Amino acid sequence: MSGERSGAGDGADKWPLDLEGVTETVVTTRGPNGRWNAAALGVHAPTSEEGAAPTARTFGNTRTRRNFAREAGGYVHFTDDPLLFVEAALSVREQDDPVLPETGAWVRVDVERVDAETSDGTRVETWSLDAAESAVVEEQVPRFDRGRAAVVEATVAASRLDVPAFDTETLHERLDFFGETARTCGGARVHEALDRLQELVSWRDRGE
Amino acid sequence: MSGERSGAGDGADKWPLDLEGVTETVVTTRGPNGRWNAAALGVHAPTSEEGAAPTARTFGNTRTRRNFAREAGGYVHFTDDPLLFVEAALSVREQDDPVLPETGAWVRVDVERVDAETSDGTRVETWSLDAAESAVVEEQVPRFDRGRAAVVEATVAASRLDVPAFDTETLHERLDFFGETARTCGGARVHEALDRLQELVSWRDRGE
Repeated sequence: MSGERSGAGDGADKWPLDLEGVTETVVTTRGPNGRWNAAALGVHAPTSEEGAAPTARTFGNTRTRRNFAREAGGYVHFTDDPLLFVEAALSVREQDDPVLPETGAWVRVDVERVDAETSDGTRVETWSLDAAESAVVEEQVPRFDRGRAAVVEATVAASRLDVPAFDTETLHERLDFFGETARTCGGARVHEALDRLQELVSWRDRGE
Repeated sequence: MSGERSGAGDGADKWPLDLEGVTETVVTTRGPNGRWNAAALGVHAPTSEEGAAPTARTFGNTRTRRNFAREAGGYVHFTDDPLLFVEAALSVREQDDPVLPETGAWVRVDVERVDAETSDGTRVETWSLDAAESAVVEEQVPRFDRGRAAVVEATVAASRLDVPAFDTETLHERLDFFGETARTCGGARVHEALDRLQELVSWRDRGE
């Protein structure tokens, strides 16, 4: 493992990349059973306000929300592994260690709830993420990969299937489009992730 | 510039990353005016056939097709820069040097036409890409970025607007969805790319 960054000072320099917009990450948080639960987490770049930290939102009373509230921290992982993302977002995945093996870089964060509101019946809480420690595990040549991106979009659509505010037919159309894109453009790992997603969501069943 | 790879031997070890599925790249090819034209190019990982090279297809009599046929080569660039991708795919961008400044890695390839067919009235030619030389310019922590991915998908949809085989209304719906995703999830560079795309395609005009 290379590029460990820790020590005192402002947490901003401990993020292992320049955040911009929203980055889809996988966070691990420690549950009451002592095991680390992996879940998808969209990390928002800090606002231009000086000293502002990145933020993330939890939707409803998820494991991540409960663990954030109790433990006030977690490990944010940057990755482009589509199978990890599907499992983190749509299934319960736990392990004994906080750091996931499929990660490109991780950041241990201290979290604090900075906002809460109820939107369409769902409790949305906003958390600030203050980097306490981080490590770069593996860097890569940057690239555009439609297959991996399609798995992320399909996962986002799938995670909204049970949310009343979203139209089910529209979500199914998106799942079909992204499923086709992932099959056409993806390699072996993308196909594995797509198979797992279809297993977890069963959207192929709708016409049967 | 680090990681130059060249010399004799099989070209497979000169690709600066493991190809899988289709990777969206930007290729520069030398035109009759001596300048290098940038265009989008989907690079397909080699088949399992031993010694097979990656391939790419050209659709219609594009600059890339004509330059490939005349020069038998070009420079493939791996990047995640959304503005470069939009301009390469949807406008004419030329420069004096073969290597683009926004690249994470480049590969000089020797190309050979290995297949040609006509599909829905469009001449589709398949080219093998044999790596002759490459360099890694900059590596990054891998991440999922819905904003950047949305710009790529919007660009793909925009590039099909004039192709009769695709339904215009469906393409506009996709442009709306990906435009919204790029606005919501993207940072400054994604917004810049989206502005440029809207300038080049004018899809906002349809209801006006």
